[in-house]
Amino acid sequence: MRKLLVIGIGVGDPDFVTIQAVNALNTVDVFFLLDKGPAAGDLTQARQAICERFITNDRYRSVTVTDPPRDRGAADYPEAVRQWRDRRAERLEQVIDAELGEHGVGGFLVWGDPSLYDGIIRVIETILERGVLTLEYEVIPGISSIQALAARHRIAINQVASPVHVTTGRRIKEGLPNNADDIVVMLDADLACAAHRDEDIDIYWGAYLGTEDEILVAGKLRDVIDHISQTRAELRERKGWIMDTYLLRRKPGQHAE
Amino acid sequence: MRKLLVIGIGVGDPDFVTIQAVNALNTVDVFFLLDKGPAAGDLTQARQAICERFITNDRYRSVTVTDPPRDRGAADYPEAVRQWRDRRAERLEQVIDAELGEHGVGGFLVWGDPSLYDGIIRVIETILERGVLTLEYEVIPGISSIQALAARHRIAINQVASPVHVTTGRRIKEGLPNNADDIVVMLDADLACAAHRDEDIDIYWGAYLGTEDEILVAGKLRDVIDHISQTRAELRERKGWIMDTYLLRRKPGQHAE
Repeated sequence: MRKLLVIGIGVGDPDFVTIQAVNALNTVDVFFLLDKGPAAGDLTQARQAICERFITNDRYRSVTVTDPPRDRGAADYPEAVRQWRDRRAERLEQVIDAELGEHGVGGFLVWGDPSLYDGIIRVIETILERGVLTLEYEVIPGISSIQALAARHRIAINQVASPVHVTTGRRIKEGLPNNADDIVVMLDADLACAAHRDEDIDIYWGAYLGTEDEILVAGKLRDVIDHISQTRAELRERKGWIMDTYLLRRKPGQHAE
Repeated sequence: MRKLLVIGIGVGDPDFVTIQAVNALNTVDVFFLLDKGPAAGDLTQARQAICERFITNDRYRSVTVTDPPRDRGAADYPEAVRQWRDRRAERLEQVIDAELGEHGVGGFLVWGDPSLYDGIIRVIETILERGVLTLEYEVIPGISSIQALAARHRIAINQVASPVHVTTGRRIKEGLPNNADDIVVMLDADLACAAHRDEDIDIYWGAYLGTEDEILVAGKLRDVIDHISQTRAELRERKGWIMDTYLLRRKPGQHAE
């Protein structure tokens, strides 16, 4: 039976790769590359570097899967994502069928951790539901950008015995959660936290985490948000893309529960 | 200057260790062991196995640090944790001073990830604030129990573009959060989710994640909670301790926002 491995390779630093991931990399016959957009070139290069460093055979090859176009301006965002996933599943199914032998092992190298804001597990589940291909698959966790952010800032993500809310830039535009003092924000293209600069909040921000371009800023939101905003714009301009994540931290019990 | 390394070793499976952690392990002169309680023996054994497998020198040694007693029944739980941390910092400071040479490297092996519900970073910060010892330190992330849970169940922790609330058993006794459909519960000795068995919730539960004793259960909360509860009691009885984590998942938009 064909087997797929969804391999979390951590964010940026090749040293974030786990022993489990190294072992998995070495069993893969065909890597399927799904990247697109401005970061695609750099991410593909980073993945290649990981393969070259950790794979001890010369049997493996890579196949690029072009993604169907996606309507990012759709009013119903989750529904648009679901439709796009279905089209993506169909395309990937065809590529797997064409490229992977009957007992072959296919690999997906996921930046960070496959369980967090990554769609590949759902795409594979969609392929299984369609029932055209028979395959098994396995998920290998990797160091996420949240963990890299915390490690580089040398902080715990939670305060003592307290919850952590992990959310998106899109969500916090509607307001900050009222039941957590620690809020991790992912996928925020606009630094939506800037709207809360007058509140008593600390921010721990990081971009290109784990890479040689890594940059960290921490401080009172009101003191550092302009600096972060300007830095972010410059970096995005220079590199053509940016990946960043941040933690917003209130003092314990500050949230309006 | 003395250096401390806080090394996340992942949960259970030695293959969860990262290359960065392996490199860090090999620079450590003295490992400080802080475990206590019923799981201490098994955790120490697991850490020893990791050291033996990945460290290529025979220079390192281990020192056990006995913890000050902790008042777990205190009314003000966070304050009790803080007081205990201060006493712990003082004790650890003395041990570091006595055991670690002026340019020595000390290591702390943290189960899972040091950024999540682990106190060692705060203890080290407390030592730094006290100003008696001069030292630098670094944090190395590891695969957390949340990631292991997700990988073994082959699920994403978040639903499409949706938030995730990470909280404790103690907190959900006051009710489930109203602003997330995905709720990760840590440190829950009593399976507090059982109170919500009549709601339309899926549970993904895992115990001893990553180890050979790993056990996974998933399903509708109402259908599987009794089975989980019974299994959990039997396992804790048999091994003398249990470590478990679970995800509660509602259908998108089900929370009463």
